Amino acid sequence: MNNHRYCVIMCGGVGSRFWPYSRQDKPKQFLDFLGTGRSLLQMSVDRIEGIVQPQNIYMLTNEQYAPIIREQFPDMRPEQILLEPCRRNTAPCIAWAAYHIHALDPEAQIMVAPSDHLVLKADRFRDSVLKAFEFIERTDAILTLGIKPHRPETGYGYIQVGDHVGGNFSAVKTFTEKPNAELAQVFLQSGEFYWNSGMFFWSAQCIIESIRSFAPDIAQKLDPGMGIYGTPGEKAFIEQNFPSCPSISIDFAVMEKAPNVYVECVDIGWSDLGTWGSLYEISPKNVDGNVTQRCKALMVNSRGNIVAVEGDKVVVASGLNDFIIADADDVLLIVPREEEQKIKLYVNEVKSKFGEQYL
Amino acid sequence: MNNHRYCVIMCGGVGSRFWPYSRQDKPKQFLDFLGTGRSLLQMSVDRIEGIVQPQNIYMLTNEQYAPIIREQFPDMRPEQILLEPCRRNTAPCIAWAAYHIHALDPEAQIMVAPSDHLVLKADRFRDSVLKAFEFIERTDAILTLGIKPHRPETGYGYIQVGDHVGGNFSAVKTFTEKPNAELAQVFLQSGEFYWNSGMFFWSAQCIIESIRSFAPDIAQKLDPGMGIYGTPGEKAFIEQNFPSCPSISIDFAVMEKAPNVYVECVDIGWSDLGTWGSLYEISPKNVDGNVTQRCKALMVNSRGNIVAVEGDKVVVASGLNDFIIADADDVLLIVPREEEQKIKLYVNEVKSKFGEQYL
Repeated sequence: MNNHRYCVIMCGGVGSRFWPYSRQDKPKQFLDFLGTGRSLLQMSVDRIEGIVQPQNIYMLTNEQYAPIIREQFPDMRPEQILLEPCRRNTAPCIAWAAYHIHALDPEAQIMVAPSDHLVLKADRFRDSVLKAFEFIERTDAILTLGIKPHRPETGYGYIQVGDHVGGNFSAVKTFTEKPNAELAQVFLQSGEFYWNSGMFFWSAQCIIESIRSFAPDIAQKLDPGMGIYGTPGEKAFIEQNFPSCPSISIDFAVMEKAPNVYVECVDIGWSDLGTWGSLYEISPKNVDGNVTQRCKALMVNSRGNIVAVEGDKVVVASGLNDFIIADADDVLLIVPREEEQKIKLYVNEVKSKFGEQYL
Repeated sequence: MNNHRYCVIMCGGVGSRFWPYSRQDKPKQFLDFLGTGRSLLQMSVDRIEGIVQPQNIYMLTNEQYAPIIREQFPDMRPEQILLEPCRRNTAPCIAWAAYHIHALDPEAQIMVAPSDHLVLKADRFRDSVLKAFEFIERTDAILTLGIKPHRPETGYGYIQVGDHVGGNFSAVKTFTEKPNAELAQVFLQSGEFYWNSGMFFWSAQCIIESIRSFAPDIAQKLDPGMGIYGTPGEKAFIEQNFPSCPSISIDFAVMEKAPNVYVECVDIGWSDLGTWGSLYEISPKNVDGNVTQRCKALMVNSRGNIVAVEGDKVVVASGLNDFIIADADDVLLIVPREEEQKIKLYVNEVKSKFGEQYL
């Protein structure tokens, strides 16, 4: 195993689109979402076993979730958990992780991964990750994994591939965030566009330089920490400087601007599990098209529903078609699947009507 | 207060039509169904306070529910709880109660009442009960309370009134059990028919003699206990003889056959609370016709639902019209209101599919 390989797993999200299953105090990445006995986060770590040394894996999260992470990873050293003092989207925290790791190992090659996605083809994933590390080890590149789309999804970012540079690797021509339905259909049919998986590879040196070039307002705040990162003074430095970084995504801050951005087009059985719809899509269905894998359900005259109910509960439903039925703790949600994007609105309404405790 | 007045409250039913709210180990009569702080059974006892002396109130139930009754009525003497060894419908247990009370007080006048009905006009109810006792104290009669129908309900028994005998009292002409919709409509329009409330009044002597005349197979089993009732030998006698009584309702065994049956036509704000539909009907509704009195609910684009959810749970529902949404312990039920009569079937299916523990 190459000792300079690192993995930064982003696990500070609140996952509100999966409410009420995903709750503010225990978002979906910490849940055994598929009933496998491992949380999505644990599965994210399991997937890179043998590729990145355990001590080279970093968790990027916030204070609130540190206890859950310690519980789910009892062997992890406290230094491996990087705690953002506040939420500033992905660019500032990815930058900080790069500065931190660079201080410990200037030759570090970093994989950045989300913690709440699903990868069904683990072997192909491992192969793709190995090839990605090899690619950035020989090329001064910013690399992202691209997923071949199979539906005109409007909730994802799309990558248009440019010149082929060998293997499954190509230069990136354009990035497009969340296209409308018409454009998504064009993207799908063109064959030139791939979904942006949110998995990135780069050397610590490369991403720091890219941030200096394309997100100078972040570099300005974090550069003064050189010499402090990796020392006991780091925590205080971050607490003082991180909050004044702009809140901006790494895609917008760097990926869309840098010239040396490449994509590895992969087929890894990926799902972002971002919505009930994506969970419905990847789940096994019974003859009536109902997904009830996690619970005991008696579905009468009901089709196309996804039923997610905690514990040993029995659900009896009749006359429901294409609904999300989710019951978790003190919240019961029954809404049409086509309204999944409205769940965030409902969460806000519940908050203002009944209080924070239901979030 | 007349010391010869007694009340027998039948509280051994399982209430399966209100599943999952009503459960086999705690049927609806023991639940604080309306969130008033008192169970339906406790309210049934509260209603006759001052009319029947506390020590003259008897609970007719089975072994399983004795602990709940003791808990809800800590001052009640154990002798006031009559435990059927098995279920034999209403006639045998009403007969036993009559024999038992007759042994203690041959002049006893008995009111028989269900434990799971609702009476909204308590003052009128008390007045009706007092008049009923006075009626049977001067007439050797079998008396039932009749409720003026306001919808063509097919789930109830109907009483056709005959000759008026003073006050609100009339002789009974016919009994009709659960008519079809067409007939129920005719009954409603005729003005001659009343719902059978299941509340009866008679002297102990009168009902025992009626049973001897019209249900001799019950009298044959229970008559030999004369001299044993009210003594320590009663329990063993009942355990031996009660199970061989036929399973038959008091309506069918006696009311429909006896010549001296009368009805007091009353307006007491009665609901049998037998179904979700009847609970929906009597409950306050919001502007969208949703009944959500027991829980915090965000109902979006949803009308005519009844939402019954235990505890401090929040329900978010969208696009649901005329549904029953009931969540209790380990069961979640979401079915159209018009299917309320099918709930018993669903209970059976859940039993065979997932086990007895959900009943």
